[in-house]
Amino acid sequence: MSGNAFWQQLESRAVGESVPLQEALAQIPWNADGLIPAIAQQHDTGEVLMLAWMNRAALEETLARGRVCYWSRSRQQLWRKGESSGQVQVLKEARLDCDGDTLLLLVDQTGPACHTGRRGCFYNLVQGERLVVDQSVLIDPANLYGK
Amino acid sequence: MSGNAFWQQLESRAVGESVPLQEALAQIPWNADGLIPAIAQQHDTGEVLMLAWMNRAALEETLARGRVCYWSRSRQQLWRKGESSGQVQVLKEARLDCDGDTLLLLVDQTGPACHTGRRGCFYNLVQGERLVVDQSVLIDPANLYGK
Repeated sequence: MSGNAFWQQLESRAVGESVPLQEALAQIPWNADGLIPAIAQQHDTGEVLMLAWMNRAALEETLARGRVCYWSRSRQQLWRKGESSGQVQVLKEARLDCDGDTLLLLVDQTGPACHTGRRGCFYNLVQGERLVVDQSVLIDPANLYGK
Repeated sequence: MSGNAFWQQLESRAVGESVPLQEALAQIPWNADGLIPAIAQQHDTGEVLMLAWMNRAALEETLARGRVCYWSRSRQQLWRKGESSGQVQVLKEARLDCDGDTLLLLVDQTGPACHTGRRGCFYNLVQGERLVVDQSVLIDPANLYGK
């Protein structure tokens, strides 16, 4: 069964119906770099914190450990969120979308999710003809990464 | 100034500081296909509805019209959300992340955002060793697209 057909047959399933997780993971349509985007959302406030990327190893580790692990495209290695900053993401819930190519992770984020020291990464707001910074730094990045 | 340096200099800006939007749009690091991911979140409930992709034309149209327009990777054309289903997304707010390569759109979604007729696309929940459908269809897709 092609990945496409796999996700299509899930579309018409009723609430409560399920498939084996391992079968689903084998059908994820990873991109040319072997990655899919993962959205991290704070589980209780609903705040969208960031988007990063996962390969299969990162996703399997995340599900197994309950701590979010991404794939760093710049460093080309597994990125255990918080391993250098201490600002970890505890996994509360993981979801795949209708065609299996995007993850939504509900997390409990300690402190800032963003490497700039802000709570989340989406601090650049379009306001008319300007792009405006509208969130403040919680922790100086020098203190997050400098030690 | 390279795109990277452009976003880096914004990182240390204080709340309220801004840059011209057109300058920022010119510095977005579009991927090899000329796209960036856009997350659509319902503005009042915080529900993450879907992730789709935008090229520069889609983003400019979205900002100009206040109606969300994506780029359809499968159809290779602009995808004015709701143009065939009637389930439009009115744009409430648009944000770019810290490195300018992801959009967060706060929207007001009419009815189902998902082509399956569900409110959102993230209805496949990881539950232990199973992937479980946990959201029901609001409108039969045959009625959304069949007319």
